[in-house]
Parts: sequence; C-alpha cells; structure tokens
Amino acid sequence: MKVSIVGATGYSGCELIRYLRYHPEVKLTSIHSSSMKNGAFASLYPHAAQLCELPLETIDPEKIMATSDLVFLAAPSGIAKDLALPFAAADFPVIDLSGDFRLKSEGAYEQWYGTSAAPYELVQHFDYGLAEFRRHKQSKWIANPGCYATAAELSLAPLLKDQLIELDSIIIDAKSGFSGAGKNLTQTAHFTEAHDNMTLYKMNQHQHIPEIVQQFNEWAPSLKTIQFSTSLIPVARGIFATTYVKAKQPISDEELVAIYKNCYDNKSFVRIQEAGIYPSLKQVIGSNYCDIGIAYNPATNIITLVTVIDNLGKGAAGQAVQNLNILAGFPENYGLDNLPLYP
Amino acid sequence: MKVSIVGATGYSGCELIRYLRYHPEVKLTSIHSSSMKNGAFASLYPHAAQLCELPLETIDPEKIMATSDLVFLAAPSGIAKDLALPFAAADFPVIDLSGDFRLKSEGAYEQWYGTSAAPYELVQHFDYGLAEFRRHKQSKWIANPGCYATAAELSLAPLLKDQLIELDSIIIDAKSGFSGAGKNLTQTAHFTEAHDNMTLYKMNQHQHIPEIVQQFNEWAPSLKTIQFSTSLIPVARGIFATTYVKAKQPISDEELVAIYKNCYDNKSFVRIQEAGIYPSLKQVIGSNYCDIGIAYNPATNIITLVTVIDNLGKGAAGQAVQNLNILAGFPENYGLDNLPLYP
Amino acid sequence: MKVSIVGATGYSGCELIRYLRYHPEVKLTSIHSSSMKNGAFASLYPHAAQLCELPLETIDPEKIMATSDLVFLAAPSGIAKDLALPFAAADFPVIDLSGDFRLKSEGAYEQWYGTSAAPYELVQHFDYGLAEFRRHKQSKWIANPGCYATAAELSLAPLLKDQLIELDSIIIDAKSGFSGAGKNLTQTAHFTEAHDNMTLYKMNQHQHIPEIVQQFNEWAPSLKTIQFSTSLIPVARGIFATTYVKAKQPISDEELVAIYKNCYDNKSFVRIQEAGIYPSLKQVIGSNYCDIGIAYNPATNIITLVTVIDNLGKGAAGQAVQNLNILAGFPENYGLDNLPLYP
Amino acid sequence: MKVSIVGATGYSGCELIRYLRYHPEVKLTSIHSSSMKNGAFASLYPHAAQLCELPLETIDPEKIMATSDLVFLAAPSGIAKDLALPFAAADFPVIDLSGDFRLKSEGAYEQWYGTSAAPYELVQHFDYGLAEFRRHKQSKWIANPGCYATAAELSLAPLLKDQLIELDSIIIDAKSGFSGAGKNLTQTAHFTEAHDNMTLYKMNQHQHIPEIVQQFNEWAPSLKTIQFSTSLIPVARGIFATTYVKAKQPISDEELVAIYKNCYDNKSFVRIQEAGIYPSLKQVIGSNYCDIGIAYNPATNIITLVTVIDNLGKGAAGQAVQNLNILAGFPENYGLDNLPLYP
Repeated sequence: MKVSIVGATGYSGCELIRYLRYHPEVKLTSIHSSSMKNGAFASLYPHAAQLCELPLETIDPEKIMATSDLVFLAAPSGIAKDLALPFAAADFPVIDLSGDFRLKSEGAYEQWYGTSAAPYELVQHFDYGLAEFRRHKQSKWIANPGCYATAAELSLAPLLKDQLIELDSIIIDAKSGFSGAGKNLTQTAHFTEAHDNMTLYKMNQHQHIPEIVQQFNEWAPSLKTIQFSTSLIPVARGIFATTYVKAKQPISDEELVAIYKNCYDNKSFVRIQEAGIYPSLKQVIGSNYCDIGIAYNPATNIITLVTVIDNLGKGAAGQAVQNLNILAGFPENYGLDNLPLYP
Repeated sequence: MKVSIVGATGYSGCELIRYLRYHPEVKLTSIHSSSMKNGAFASLYPHAAQLCELPLETIDPEKIMATSDLVFLAAPSGIAKDLALPFAAADFPVIDLSGDFRLKSEGAYEQWYGTSAAPYELVQHFDYGLAEFRRHKQSKWIANPGCYATAAELSLAPLLKDQLIELDSIIIDAKSGFSGAGKNLTQTAHFTEAHDNMTLYKMNQHQHIPEIVQQFNEWAPSLKTIQFSTSLIPVARGIFATTYVKAKQPISDEELVAIYKNCYDNKSFVRIQEAGIYPSLKQVIGSNYCDIGIAYNPATNIITLVTVIDNLGKGAAGQAVQNLNILAGFPENYGLDNLPLYP
Repeated sequence: MKVSIVGATGYSGCELIRYLRYHPEVKLTSIHSSSMKNGAFASLYPHAAQLCELPLETIDPEKIMATSDLVFLAAPSGIAKDLALPFAAADFPVIDLSGDFRLKSEGAYEQWYGTSAAPYELVQHFDYGLAEFRRHKQSKWIANPGCYATAAELSLAPLLKDQLIELDSIIIDAKSGFSGAGKNLTQTAHFTEAHDNMTLYKMNQHQHIPEIVQQFNEWAPSLKTIQFSTSLIPVARGIFATTYVKAKQPISDEELVAIYKNCYDNKSFVRIQEAGIYPSLKQVIGSNYCDIGIAYNPATNIITLVTVIDNLGKGAAGQAVQNLNILAGFPENYGLDNLPLYP
Repeated sequence: MKVSIVGATGYSGCELIRYLRYHPEVKLTSIHSSSMKNGAFASLYPHAAQLCELPLETIDPEKIMATSDLVFLAAPSGIAKDLALPFAAADFPVIDLSGDFRLKSEGAYEQWYGTSAAPYELVQHFDYGLAEFRRHKQSKWIANPGCYATAAELSLAPLLKDQLIELDSIIIDAKSGFSGAGKNLTQTAHFTEAHDNMTLYKMNQHQHIPEIVQQFNEWAPSLKTIQFSTSLIPVARGIFATTYVKAKQPISDEELVAIYKNCYDNKSFVRIQEAGIYPSLKQVIGSNYCDIGIAYNPATNIITLVTVIDNLGKGAAGQAVQNLNILAGFPENYGLDNLPLYP
C-alpha cells in the first residue's frame, strides 16, 4: 500500500513519518507541505537524515492520487476542509487529522471553531475515527479524533456504555504538553514562559468539547454536556487527563478494573492498570498506547480515571495509522508495536 | 525580634532564611538541624555564602529560648510533635510548619498520618495558621497550614462563607512541583523519572484532606468531605489547583469576581484576577501571593477556580512569616513584599 | 534618588523593577516602552500586581528628565543607540544595558552587530560597566556589560592581571538559559524545540567576543583573540561558563584559589569556591552573584574555571543596579543583598 | 539468534529491550537482574506492558547459556567483571556495557575506577567495541564503549587519523543528561536540584579519560592526555560534546566536512552536518545516530566539533546492538533504523 502525507512539516506529519517507517505493509511515497519551500525533508528536519530522504513537494492532488492509495491530511483545522475536497470528489481515501470533519451537527463547527464548516454532506461521510469504537469500519474517509477527545472518550467509554454513572456529573481536568498546540510561535509557548510554569487556557471553550459530547452521546444519548478544562504543563508530549464522575451505585476498585478490562479486552492499545495503580505520563510517550488507572472513593461516591496518551501518538499520528490498518484490513498493531521511549 | 529555625536544612527552612533576610524587624539568631552535621550553613548551601553565615547547630531548646523570642519548627511531620514539647512546656512561641498540630479531631492524625499524634491538649492550643482567616490571632502557638490545604482553602473561602455552592460537589484537582515533597531521595523524584512526566499519588489518601475539611467546616459545618487529587508536575516550585463546585444558583463571572474581591478586600496576599483571566503558576513563584481566577460555566452550572501559590512561599515559609507578623503585631507584608521571580 | 526605566517590558526591564523594589535609596518613578500599548504594567505582568502599579508610558525623554535623576535603557541593541541621544545631549545620567555603547574601537560595532554604530564620540564617553573593575567610576554614562561578557571577564581577570597564562590559549565554552535571548518568538525558543534539547549558536560569531577581548586587553594588551562558544541549555535563567587556559607555570588549586580570593577580596558579588568545589548554576539564580570554581590539571597544565551568573542579575539588571550604586555613592549591595532563589 | 540480558532493570537494559524488539533476526529469550525481586518486567516497567512479558529472573549463567546464544551484560562497572567470568570460562559470547573490560593497560582500571580490575588476561580478550572502528570484528567478547567516550572518539577520529591537529591541544567539554548516571538516588539527581540547574562533576577525574586516550592512541600513538570535562544538563537523555583542537595548518570548513564525510563514508550511524550547520541534541534522541558539526576558526586556528548522541543509544544499548550485528554478520542497521523521537 502506498500513502502520501499532506502537511508533513507539522509535528503530526513528522510523527506519521516515524510510525510509517515501522509499517511492514505501507510505503510512504510522497510528502507535501504548503508552508515550506520545496527541498529535502531532512534538510529541515535533520533527525530524519538518511531515514526519510523524500523531497517536500507542493500539494498536487492529481499527482498524489496517481501515485498513492491513500492520503493523510495533517494540516491544521480550518485548512484541511479545503484540502480534502479534490480527494473527496475523486472518491479517494483520506484520513484527516484535523477537526474539520468531526462534528456532525450542523452549526457546531462554526460555533466552536469560529469559521465556516466543510460541506455538510461531506462531513457526514467521514467516519469518526476513535479506533476502538469505529462505527463504519469500511469507510474510506476518516476524521481522526482530537488528542484531548481521544483521552476523554477512552476514559469513560466503559462507564457510559454500562450506564454506571450520573450523566451530569462528568468533570475532565486535562493537561497537555506543548507539542499539542503545534509549531505556532506564541508568547505562551516561548520556552522562558512555558518552562517551570502551568497555565489553563480556553476556559469552558475548548473545541474538543462538542466532539467529546458527540461521542459520549453514542453511548449515552441523554447526556447534555460536560465540564472540561485544558491546561499546559511543561512537557513536550503527552496528555494526562484526570476525570471525575459520580457513580450511580457504590462500587469497588476491583469491579471497575474488571469492567474496564472487559470493555477493552481485545483492544490492545488500551492498557488497564490494576487496582491501586495509576499510570505516569512517561509510560506511553512515543507510542500509540492509552493507559488508564481507576479509583472509586467511597467517601464521595466519585470514580476517578487517570488516563495518559501521547498526543502525537494515540492522540494523532498513532491513531491515524491504526485507522489506516482498520481501513486496509491489516492487523491493528502494524507499525505501532514499538516500545514507548522510557526513560 | 529575634527568632530561631529548627530544621533549617530542609527546603522550607532555607526559604524562611530567605524571607527573614528582607524583614525589617526580625533578626535570625540561630539555625538548627538534627540531620546534618555541624558547620557553616553556607558550606552546605553555597547560594547563601556571605548572606547567611550562621553555623548550623544541634537542637538545644534551652539555648534557643535563651537567645531568641520565637522558634520556627521546619521539621517533617512526625518529628515536629516531639520537638515542640519543650517549647510548649516553657510557654515559648512556636510556629510549626509540619502537619503535627493541625488536626483537632481526636484520631484524625493517627488515621491520616499513620503514626501517633501529639498530645491532644497541646494540639488544641495551636491556632490553625491560615493567615487570612486566623481565629486566635493572639495565640503564640501556630500550626502553619499545608501547602495544598492553603491553596484549597483560599480557593473556596468566599463561596463557602456565602453559602453559594452545593457542599457535596467539591472536587479539587491539585498539581504540585517537586520541592513540595522535600529533599527525600525517591525513585519518583529522580530527575530522569520526574522530568517530562506527570504522576498522580496518594489517590484519595492525601493527609491534607482532613485539614481542608476541618477548615471548610469553619465556614460550612455540614460539609462532610471533598474529592481531592494530588499530582506531580515537572516544576521545582508551585501548586496549581483547579477546583470545581456546583453553584446553588446561576451566577456570572463578574458577580463571582466581585464576591472574591470583597472577601479578600484587605487581605493583600490574595490577588483576584479579573473575569476571563486565569493565573499562571509562574506569577507567584518566590513570593507569598495566592492568585485566583474564577469562571462560571452556565452549561454545567459549575464554578471553576484556578489557584496558584508557591508551595514554599504562601504554602510554607511565606505564610509562616506572615503568621509571625500577625503574632508580633507587625504589618503583614513585612519581609514578604518582594516581587515574584519572573521569568 | 529617582529613576526611570525605558524598555520596561523586556526581561531585563522587569528584573530592574524587581531589584529596585529592594533598594533603600532609590524610587522608581516611571517606566516606558515603545513596543507595548499604554496601560498598567501589572495588567501585562500579573506577577507585579500590587507591587508595581506604575503605568507603562511612551518614551518621552523630556518628561523622564523632568521627573527622575537617571534613566536605565533596557532596550535591545540597535535601538538603544538612538534612545540615548536626547539624554546624552542633555548631560543626563544613563545606564544602558544594550551592546550599543560598549565597543570603543571604530568599526567593531558595525562588524559584529551588522548595523551602524552610535556616534563615535558618544561611545567613548560611556564607561564600560564591569562593576568590579570600572575605570571611570565618576562617569554618568555607563555601558552595562553583556551577560556572557560579564561571566568571561570575571572568570579570567585574576589570571590576566597577574600574567599567569598563555594569552593565545583562552577557550570559553559558555552555556545560557533562554531568557538571555529575550522575548523574541523564534523556532529555537519554542518550548517543544528548546525543552530537552541543547544547541550551539553563532559559532565563532557572537557579538560579545570583541567586548570580551577589549576588556581582556585592559589587563593584557597583547592578547589578540579568544575562542568562544555560546550554547543554549533548557533553563530559563543563568550562564554557566567553562573556561580553559594554559598556565605559564605549574600551579596548585590552592594557590589559584588564593589568587582569586585576593583579587576579589573587597568585591562582595564575586564569590570564590574553595579548592575542589565547583558552583552549580542554581546557586546564583535571582541574584547579583558571580560564583567561580577553579581547578588546575597537572596532566595538561590547563586551568579550568567554572563560572555561574544569572544572566538577568549580574549579567544585566543586577549589575546595572550595582553600577547605579557606584555612580550615586551608595553601598554596592543596596538593592542587591537578597538571597538567590534556591531551590 | 537468541539473546539474554543481565541487568535488565537499569536504563541501558531497558533500552536494549526496546531496540531488540525492532530486530528482525534476534529474539530476546530471558532477562535477569540481581537487584529486583522476581516478577514480570512489565509490572516494574509499565511502559512495557504487552510488549515485553518476560519474567525477571535471577542470574543463572548455566541457564542463560543453555537457552541463548549471547548475553548482554548491562550491569554497573565493578559488578560486570564478576558476572562475566562464567561466560568467559565457557567461551560464550558476551557484550559488556560496563567499563570493566575496556582499559587494557595494567593498573589503569584500579587508578580510575578505584577498585580491583578484572583478570588481566580476560580484559585483553575483550575487543573495544567502538563499532565504526572495531579492531577484532570476529571477537566474541566485546567491551562496549562508554557514552562520553563514544562521543569523544567519533568526534576526533578523522582528525587524529589524518594527523591534522596538535596532539596536546585537545579539550573536550561534554554535557550529559541524567540517565547517563543511572537510577542511583543521589542529591544531585533529585529533580528539585537537577531541574533548572547545571553542574560540573568529577573535575579532571572522569573514568572515561583513560578509555578515550587509549582509543586516541590507536590513531595517534604519541598523544599523552586530554583535557576533559563532564557536566550535567537538565535533560533525561543525550550527550552534547563540544571539542576544541588546534589545527596544524589553516584549513576551511568545507575541507573539514569533506574529510569527515570521507572518514564516515560507509558508516551510516555517523551523520556529518554540512558546513555552517551544527546538530541539536534532540535530533538523535531515541536512536543510534552520532551527528557531528564542524567549524574552523581562522582567528584562533581552532577547530570546534559539536557532537551529539543519545547516551542510551549510540552511547550504550544502540551501539551494543550494532556490535551484536557485527559479531553475527547481520547488516549493521538491523534493529536500529528507527527515526529519532522528534520533537
């Protein structure tokens, strides 16, 4: 199988190149970018010297479709919606890593992203790519989930599916490293400001909120909204999400672990910690894993979920490769079975 | 006024030395430690060369009482309770930074600290030193609050005093830097493990929980418990606490800011951010400030508080000096009116 | 004494505000910036709320001269040379923190800074402000040294003055934190790139090279040039300079320590480590100290100097205040005798 | 081919497991440790859950030799020398990552490591495993080089082999991340001390000095010693070595780049930067690459080399796998051709 990447110079694009190198069945045939001038990828990204000697090309959908079988769009939200159009028109497979094709409800994109949405019909044809819970696995158009959304959705899937919690009680306190915000130069992301610091941003306004609620509604249609915070911690990669929900009934840590293990039984990229064990961020960095620790507090009747992912792995490029595997019928772990980089 | 420090080689002890140097009315006359051999403080702590040339002495209560007017106990919890006895017996002023004299309810200390408590009678004589809300300002024995507890209590004081929230809805997600855990050598605190990482520890078991509930009960006697998490983020100093509570009634950001500003009107170390502004951790490091941002979410009826302190400042040594000022009748900002170290 | 700051929104400007707050004889009367819109300083820099409530004003030399006795120019190199003109014309005291008035040799500024120099005559009137070795202490115009230059010059002063080393053997390997490069938004300074990284920049081209050679020539006129490297390490503040020089004669660590202590005998901001002890960067952060460790290697006949400063302290604002003290006849430690922020 | 690891719980042991997972021709059959109790590796190292489900076993040479074809010793220096004996006695292949079999000169080990050496005869039988310049490629006993030593030796090999530099002029200023010192709990490695800090340690006494000189003598027998410093920077992984040497003759950057490219022509793990480009540490992390930038300074006649490696990759486990490939006749990049983890 031959694939191309559009938006190869962003962090997610770079990470796709890294994962695809391990893939036994996929060959990366071309990489494209609008923001950088042409030239060898490795001259911009010296870590890739000798390992990815492809040239950076301008974005030419005709050529991409002529030479590859699928395209990853790793461009920012707001840009991807236009880039996708020629591929969609030609019925060519697309895995889009932006937010542009995730929100199915009319008007939601405009409200949360502050700009006009992709054509309504086209958005409906993209399958929301939460890999463990894909609805239309045969879809050739995939809207890869957001990084925060992936962590939030995998955290609560078992509890929502089994109707174990009060639906109006969900509070998700999510922390992210700085690669999640991409390469944009901002005062917040300046090392001198970001280092030794922590900040909360987009209070009650993060664009992943509607995406999370939309997926939660698959499991719990009457759920209306969630409380969701996003903070920046001084790490390069990773999301650490602490989620609090009220249990409908008293329960034990052991029962909860059993419920989670059962739900993720044949889903190898979600690893459930034993009772009393909570994951550290570092144990998933560089990988497609999502590790979840679970605790029930009898004093408050609250269940706490501690969930870690690499925002560039399971939160972006890793899951995109996983979705490629599903689409192509490869084993889900192809290209993704490397060990996280510890320490 | 002359003061001594017992436990001067810990981080809180060092920070007391730093603050006291600015103090116009206090002279540090001796510093003591059980864990280090005698010698010049500055030979162990070269940052203090020429600035603190006191020798480190063994702990001799008689000598301390003969040469100073007050003693700071900056020893760990479990040790301070014995160190305090001779001073208490002699009716000598003590500001204790440990957890040993904070919990007034019989049995609570044993339950949460896992060791035997200080004598019940003596514990009752220590005033809980949340400086902005001291009960017995004339007390000469002060139990300085814990770092997490300070952040939590200042976060919710206005809402609890005005009875604006559902008492069973309090969730505090607190993150701390590594100096909060002291100088102990642990695998978790090894740089290679701690760097680029985040972990959650003492799930539902942190010993500051009963201290916080005790103080909350001053304002809301029927409150039973709270949901409280403690995580470690890769910074040296600082606590960043995100608190979620259900409002009894819909309210606005502006109303909330007004309520907080009113509550902290003449309490200069608590700085309330304007509506829509949330503090970053860095803006209080090296200082005694506690900065609070407030947001109401009409979709969930939840109020979010974002609170930052320096765990060694307002969370330990800074507040201890503030309590000294209260005790001695000095202006509260003596020794504490320096600018935070930014950037 | 009343002073103003032009360029108050940069890191050096902020740090001047922090130091001046401790100063018993100086009052900061106005702060100015060209790059930011008017408004309260504390609304841009919330760490300063309640502590610096001055408004940010545009740059009005007439007003500054009417209301204060001295102006600090904390603007970038290339800008300060114009800002200084009206003050110079009016014979008004200026302490300039930029590189614009340091290089006395015609053509050097153009060569190393790549832009036109300040008027030659005016440059000659600025005293180079290496505080421990000022030539014209009565000068009212002071060119505050560069951060790297300060570290390099204080490292080698005793050896050069006593003619103990081969002049063509000097190699300085200097590492800096990111605040040294100011607040400019660059790819290099993006947290995701800077964190967990180290880079070398301006290979053999750093503009502090001629400044260092010029000062070395005060002590060793026949010295021609030096080998000097500048790297970035992932810390916010601090310069760590490792210097290698060939000794003319075999010597011992103890002799070297004695020579350094003698040279810096009455210069309290340079602290010499005992033989076998080397300073860590952290022991000077937040202060005006320069700490130096010294080792002689009999196998190579090389003396290694390990020198640490805070680039915003002794490397910028701290030394500027020290130069103010010299100019005004205050004790040199006024405003500067705080403890470094450890840990 | 089947291999075992002794010392699997250290950082180098963990990294060996990570690299071997990529290896198409090698199967890891058992892992051993003396310091940890038995149990699943993944219960101690949760990052490896599902990926390395081997149990940790005690060290049983008989069993290891019965079930595998080669053993990696990833134990600390001073321990490995005893662990190797039974394997050596049985003529069983060993790749030792410690310093115990590197120094061939009698007495050197005792002098620099401060403890008794392995048997002299046995030490001579270990080939020093600087992979690009192995002497006895058919040797079945390999002493894998030290991390600093690898960086230093690859930095200067072309200049020494071509006799281009003054042999008494070599100064190496090397900086390392904290994983280089292993998992030992020390005050220096405590996060609160190490973070935002830089320190120099083992001044003129680092045990890699004799190893480097020994290898340099292969290329330049008359070289006597080097000046070599080791510092710690706040990163988890990586060595950044800045090397200064006097050129015998004036030369240009372009000539130097050509010399280096020629020397490393068919040695794919050493990547030479173009003239004017210097590597950043991050571009090799997680990989077996050694990237070198080169600059000639006509003003001083000094050549500066900027060399980066991952101390756990090319500096330990990566090079060990490379040496395995040489020994077994596999292509050198087997198991090692992954992309570095950027960003």
